[in-house]
Amino acid sequence: PANKKLLFLPGDGIGPEVMRQVRRVIDWLDRKRNVTFDVTEGLVGGAAIDAYGVPLKDETLADALAVDAVMLGAVGGPKWDNPTDYTKRPEAGLLMLRKELNLFANLRPAVVFDALVDASTLKADVIRGLDILIVRELTGGVYFGEPRGITDIGNGERRGVNTQVYTTSEIRRVARVAFELARKRGNKLHSMEKANVMESGLLWRQEVTKLHQEEFSDVTLEHMYADNGAMQLLKNPKQFDVIVTDNLFGDILSDEAAMMTGSLGMLPSASLGAPDANGQRKALYEPVHGSAPDIAGRDLANPCATLLSFAMCLRYSFNMDEEAKMLEKAVQNVLSGGMRTADIMAPGMARCSTTVMGDSILREL
Amino acid sequence: PANKKLLFLPGDGIGPEVMRQVRRVIDWLDRKRNVTFDVTEGLVGGAAIDAYGVPLKDETLADALAVDAVMLGAVGGPKWDNPTDYTKRPEAGLLMLRKELNLFANLRPAVVFDALVDASTLKADVIRGLDILIVRELTGGVYFGEPRGITDIGNGERRGVNTQVYTTSEIRRVARVAFELARKRGNKLHSMEKANVMESGLLWRQEVTKLHQEEFSDVTLEHMYADNGAMQLLKNPKQFDVIVTDNLFGDILSDEAAMMTGSLGMLPSASLGAPDANGQRKALYEPVHGSAPDIAGRDLANPCATLLSFAMCLRYSFNMDEEAKMLEKAVQNVLSGGMRTADIMAPGMARCSTTVMGDSILREL
Ligand SMILES: CC(C)[C@H](C(=O)O)[C@@H](O)C(=O)O
Ligand SMILES: CC(C)[C@H](C(=O)O)[C@@H](O)C(=O)O
Repeated sequence: PANKKLLFLPGDGIGPEVMRQVRRVIDWLDRKRNVTFDVTEGLVGGAAIDAYGVPLKDETLADALAVDAVMLGAVGGPKWDNPTDYTKRPEAGLLMLRKELNLFANLRPAVVFDALVDASTLKADVIRGLDILIVRELTGGVYFGEPRGITDIGNGERRGVNTQVYTTSEIRRVARVAFELARKRGNKLHSMEKANVMESGLLWRQEVTKLHQEEFSDVTLEHMYADNGAMQLLKNPKQFDVIVTDNLFGDILSDEAAMMTGSLGMLPSASLGAPDANGQRKALYEPVHGSAPDIAGRDLANPCATLLSFAMCLRYSFNMDEEAKMLEKAVQNVLSGGMRTADIMAPGMARCSTTVMGDSILREL
Repeated sequence: PANKKLLFLPGDGIGPEVMRQVRRVIDWLDRKRNVTFDVTEGLVGGAAIDAYGVPLKDETLADALAVDAVMLGAVGGPKWDNPTDYTKRPEAGLLMLRKELNLFANLRPAVVFDALVDASTLKADVIRGLDILIVRELTGGVYFGEPRGITDIGNGERRGVNTQVYTTSEIRRVARVAFELARKRGNKLHSMEKANVMESGLLWRQEVTKLHQEEFSDVTLEHMYADNGAMQLLKNPKQFDVIVTDNLFGDILSDEAAMMTGSLGMLPSASLGAPDANGQRKALYEPVHGSAPDIAGRDLANPCATLLSFAMCLRYSFNMDEEAKMLEKAVQNVLSGGMRTADIMAPGMARCSTTVMGDSILREL
């Protein structure tokens, strides 16, 4: 069979150094598991702006559309922060990938690693064993809605506009992914919006309710206003199994949930498209953390989130559940053994660099 | 001088019972401090829907416009949750009050009471002594933007739309309130938006920056993306002094901050309009917590948030800083003495009812 095709987009800041550790896992898969990947590499974000003047070249986008999966490091940094031209921001490269690959379902697990319970600012008993999956809609809502922009309205006044918009089918397809994932987990789904204030949220609630009745009545469904969701996450996070929400609420609530775990440098994510005739989905995998420009290039970053994103890639894009589990187990064992990058360092543990963390995980494998 | 005029809108759920404790403080002010209030009362929310078919009668709105300040309990409840007609929801009454009184600046303190440090799900050392003030824009953004609504787009598909919109002057007036408050506190302001994704957020950032340069360069200003803000609040809440943000982000971030304190039943809020020729602002005061229908009418609710909202009312609407401080001190002393309503009950403390909490605070006064 044809080799499995991967596109690597290391991006900015710590992106390249954490992605390097994924390369090593790919070598291991080749040598020890007889699985060969064709890996091509490209630039995205600030790196692409520096090289080509745009955050994502057409050729890179074409590559992304041609491969089985994209692995992304991180984008952004103060160097490219100033431009007011939206098309010239590092983020625009990432947003374009999401949109053009139609990656409407963003899976963000918020998991507390036993070895890291104490790293959270939340009390250990509140978060020990936490395992939430946030499914964030990723190609709609206020991120992409039109009209948008800043206009002059006279008298030195300006007006900034964005449009929050969802259609029935956009809501249903992401809710379907969430219901299906809930079935494989705790069978409970919370849907979050502001239906009490926003019509787009009311439509969201109505369509999720309908889909539930039509196809997923075996899953327990609860609706929650997003502000209450932000509270309930803190009050009693373990009440949640799967959460589905829109692009903007998902951005904020998933970051809240991620920070709650205390394991931000550990959290992976997957962004999935619609299944094609062969059941294959376009997919992009990336760590939840950002490009951390302050520690970039210093071999300090935690590569675990990116390695675990690659585990998700093995599972969702290549059906390699066994290898995914091996990689996840290796990460866990290294943590249990006391190895810690700076971000998760704790008294009594062994502080290590990005490379040494990679070494240890490879050794476990 | 003419008596001070107050409108009481107890609203739904626990609203009436917590507002009753404010009446007692008003009697005390009359008897002991020689300050007389003219208090009229009206219905809002579900209570108004039941009585008049609308969540806010024109007459009640006219009353609200005529008084010096409005004290509100809480609105909403499952009884009125279903209608898809937005004008027939309890929330619509509250939103109409905000809009018609032009209460654009919503002040939400997130304060940790020493006696309640352990009630939080966050670790005590992370939140002990926390004192943040969130200034939420309250009459603009996606809450009120047009166009909005749900439309049929054929093929059984519907489309839900809301509009996020801010003008220069809407941003500047709320930022001004935030800068002025920061000056009286820790002199530090964080402004939160998603300028990396939304043009309305970019305009927000630009205008806050401009106002800072023009008039408040003595205040330390930092910009933060709202998703990062949700994280930083959890990671290190004490880095913040005053936070200014838009209506929707403010809704979510202030609820997150409130729940972090562990003192949700303790947190007041003030919603202020623009100063008139005499420097008077229209104002509405209400607790941050909701109507808690599950415990309504059972004398279980915590009246402290509402009493502290009244303290804000004394301070901001009537310049009665001394009396405000007396009331705040009374609440604190009662807490330190070990009295606890159910929501903040802890081992070794004395559990009490709404009324008994009120008794104790009155006795302190
Ligand atoms: C970088 C930014 C555009 C992005 C977003 O807002 O979606 C990020 O915050 C994320 O959550 O992936
Ligand atoms: C009740 C609701 C309309 C309101 C809001 O969304 O603003 C509430 O959540 C609040 O924060 O005051």
